Amino acid sequence: MHDTAAIGVDVGGTATKAGVISRTGEIFLRAERPTDPQAGTKGIIGVVETLLEQSSAESISIAAIGVGAAGFVDALKGSVTFSPNLVYDDPHIAEALTARTSLPALVDNDANAAAWGEYCFGSAKGAANLAFITLGTGVGSGFVVNGDLLRGAHGAGAELGHMVIDPSGPHCPCGLKGCLEQFASGGAIERWAREAVEKDPSSSILAFAGSASEITGEHVTQAAREYDETARAVLRRAGNALGVGLSNVVNLFEPEAIVLGGSVVRAGEPFLGPARDRLSTMLTAQRRRPARLDVTSLGNDAGVMGAGMLALAMVDKEN
Amino acid sequence: MHDTAAIGVDVGGTATKAGVISRTGEIFLRAERPTDPQAGTKGIIGVVETLLEQSSAESISIAAIGVGAAGFVDALKGSVTFSPNLVYDDPHIAEALTARTSLPALVDNDANAAAWGEYCFGSAKGAANLAFITLGTGVGSGFVVNGDLLRGAHGAGAELGHMVIDPSGPHCPCGLKGCLEQFASGGAIERWAREAVEKDPSSSILAFAGSASEITGEHVTQAAREYDETARAVLRRAGNALGVGLSNVVNLFEPEAIVLGGSVVRAGEPFLGPARDRLSTMLTAQRRRPARLDVTSLGNDAGVMGAGMLALAMVDKEN
Repeated sequence: MHDTAAIGVDVGGTATKAGVISRTGEIFLRAERPTDPQAGTKGIIGVVETLLEQSSAESISIAAIGVGAAGFVDALKGSVTFSPNLVYDDPHIAEALTARTSLPALVDNDANAAAWGEYCFGSAKGAANLAFITLGTGVGSGFVVNGDLLRGAHGAGAELGHMVIDPSGPHCPCGLKGCLEQFASGGAIERWAREAVEKDPSSSILAFAGSASEITGEHVTQAAREYDETARAVLRRAGNALGVGLSNVVNLFEPEAIVLGGSVVRAGEPFLGPARDRLSTMLTAQRRRPARLDVTSLGNDAGVMGAGMLALAMVDKEN
Repeated sequence: MHDTAAIGVDVGGTATKAGVISRTGEIFLRAERPTDPQAGTKGIIGVVETLLEQSSAESISIAAIGVGAAGFVDALKGSVTFSPNLVYDDPHIAEALTARTSLPALVDNDANAAAWGEYCFGSAKGAANLAFITLGTGVGSGFVVNGDLLRGAHGAGAELGHMVIDPSGPHCPCGLKGCLEQFASGGAIERWAREAVEKDPSSSILAFAGSASEITGEHVTQAAREYDETARAVLRRAGNALGVGLSNVVNLFEPEAIVLGGSVVRAGEPFLGPARDRLSTMLTAQRRRPARLDVTSLGNDAGVMGAGMLALAMVDKEN
């Protein structure tokens, strides 16, 4: 029989991923299903039950369940309080999980869970001050400050994506205008790419996508790899905005390391280069030290790992 | 003989203030001198020596010295690393103080010290997540996260004033463009007031100031109290920008309370009202809880008190 393990769940906009994770970061078992945009909680219970059956079959004892959920999360109550992109059929996720499984359950913001995964097992492992930023459809973030996760008074802190960097900027689904997410996310890249191909229909973005309405970040990345200048300009614009956001992160948190994750980092240098350059220019102007900027070494597992470790920490604290 | 006390020093752009402070927040003795913009450290040593002599005469035992200094501070080394508005003749302030007095000394950012003073003795005393923002010539800030002061990896965090809220905004002495400080500080109010009286020479701002070049924030406040619309528009503009900054504070830190200090809060409702309204509108748009926004109850003493308490905490930790 293995040492006590936890189930970690990472609820993203497209997939709900889960794993059975040991204290040392091994992932024994995995489960995944598409996220039902109308029934987030059912999907969480689904993957958890799958893993509990498999764990039982392999005699792995599960001590607790941790969930990283997209949206504003009240970590104390284990509930999602506001989720712009996803409907949780039961917002009281922790309660629902415990009722179903009789196991202690914890819910935190998905990016907080991933930040904790980076702190436990990533390239900046153990950095007492660490910023994790995930760039997908939106921009999520988690901050470790003095070795603890920053959650805020009610678990709704660390929303870097909704830091306003241009009060006259475009509307954001969160209700504000000019949020970082409107400039430095996969969504922004797609929006700008659609605008750009109208002016430059010869761009290979359009060749890869078929039509403007079907453009995804992946098409922009493919075109940029072929040195399509329109695609590179779009990624440069998003990278530049990210650089401004990163400068704000340094001015507020001065982390030992900033770790970037999410699908957008796969765009690589055409996106990351301008971000790094902009940040570096801004730090130099302020005579600040250079910042350490890493791309996650945990692939897409940081969230699952962190959610599991948070659940184990909760159980340890209670015992 | 009193219980052990500490000397707290608060180095601002205009005055260097110090006090002998007890563990319960009593200020036994005070000293103050104008800050020499070319010799900040000499001024600190000056007030400290004055207070040491007086303490000795009154048989008060001083355990340590704490300094809150304007600029980027390496709290671990007790040194100022970058100070845009003030020259420290010796940046290694803690070392210089200990060499002179044989007492343990600590240096932190002035706004961090004031945030700690608020946490120890202010209206939001004991709030594990607390944001303190000081609005003077510039914008300073200190954040308590999970009951600890946020300093960052090298003590140069919590610089809310240099969070960029408009990348195409005006230049800031820190080297960046569009920092919050360029929109929501006393300096910004003066700049906008000078511009505004050019268009409206009948504004009572000009009557109070004598000439455009002599306008201070105080003149704008006086004019606004007389319902001078030009003055009120200037304060509204600054308050609005502060509201954006406060929304960013809530999205990042979600503090239990935000405490405002500094000379600009004396402008009162014509400035604070628009800030509160803008913040409230933004929080409502995001379906966030209302935020608690206080004006400091400690007058100008938060910095001195916090610096003293940080010094006592350092000594306690070492013993």
